[in-house]
Amino acid sequence: MRTSEMNVDNGVNVEALLGARDALTSAPEGARFKWRATCDWVGGTHSRSSVKGFFGLGEEQSHKTSFTFSTDHPEVFASEDHGATPVEYVLVGLAGCLTAGVASVAQNRKIQLHSVKATLEGSMDLQGILGIDSDVRNGFDDIRVVFDIDADASKEDIEAIVAQSQKRSAVFDIVTNPTNVSVEVR
Amino acid sequence: MRTSEMNVDNGVNVEALLGARDALTSAPEGARFKWRATCDWVGGTHSRSSVKGFFGLGEEQSHKTSFTFSTDHPEVFASEDHGATPVEYVLVGLAGCLTAGVASVAQNRKIQLHSVKATLEGSMDLQGILGIDSDVRNGFDDIRVVFDIDADASKEDIEAIVAQSQKRSAVFDIVTNPTNVSVEVR
Repeated sequence: MRTSEMNVDNGVNVEALLGARDALTSAPEGARFKWRATCDWVGGTHSRSSVKGFFGLGEEQSHKTSFTFSTDHPEVFASEDHGATPVEYVLVGLAGCLTAGVASVAQNRKIQLHSVKATLEGSMDLQGILGIDSDVRNGFDDIRVVFDIDADASKEDIEAIVAQSQKRSAVFDIVTNPTNVSVEVR
Repeated sequence: MRTSEMNVDNGVNVEALLGARDALTSAPEGARFKWRATCDWVGGTHSRSSVKGFFGLGEEQSHKTSFTFSTDHPEVFASEDHGATPVEYVLVGLAGCLTAGVASVAQNRKIQLHSVKATLEGSMDLQGILGIDSDVRNGFDDIRVVFDIDADASKEDIEAIVAQSQKRSAVFDIVTNPTNVSVEVR
């Protein structure tokens, strides 16, 4: 049942990533990236954000296309539900980051993946954001991620891949550790 | 130039929100929400996430439609750039959350907004995720948010609105404070 290690292809170019690691080890200023989003208020709780340019490898970079996203609150918050809620975007980012990591680590370990599904749930007590109880935080009090993975590997090897993905995940770090955010009005 | 306070309409139903606060103060179990996303690996670093159902007010709820999102890495990471990066999704969530808060607080304070634009930049040293330097964190080392707001209000009042939005923002809290994330393999 095990795919020949020679033929493992999860679609991740590990050689290029290892090459980038070598290149940036000797030129670490190239590793300084800046990711950006701009957000325009549409009305009510509905906003539209765009992502296109970023900075890295010492110069301005760009996605192939501009990605746009609507955020809104749902009807149970007396809003119009024009998009996913902002906190759901955080779950999507976490899911995408951990899953890309699983594919990359599996490729590096020469393990063929057949399917990867992540199911995320973040619990939140609205008494925080509604200002009912100042002891209740505004954000998630807990996030659970469950992976269902079909791969040519033992359960133990799959768990080790997921653990390594966590260890190198940008969004996992952002969510689990404090990050400074400065907000100013121009 | 100041809109009559009677006519202030930012599209936010503040009465409904204040009513919800009253209702949930006496029935706090209704304030327990669970937000969800599911993510399917497509190939390489490309995944597709969906958001539809959530739990709140004591029962299963649903968005009017399913929202789907592609996450990927850009071409400079030897990927195919099928979607925004996971960390950009975090910026989008933060932008949407703070902007919805600005609209809600302005409505509550009877201040008419004309336009709100948020510009976000998160800096990140890739030496973390590439495993070059274990002292470098994986996530953002800093996020800057700049608001340009046109409203019938003084700069001081606008700054106070933005400060209050930060104070009640779920995503601002998630990013600036640690949140527990458990990851398991089924």
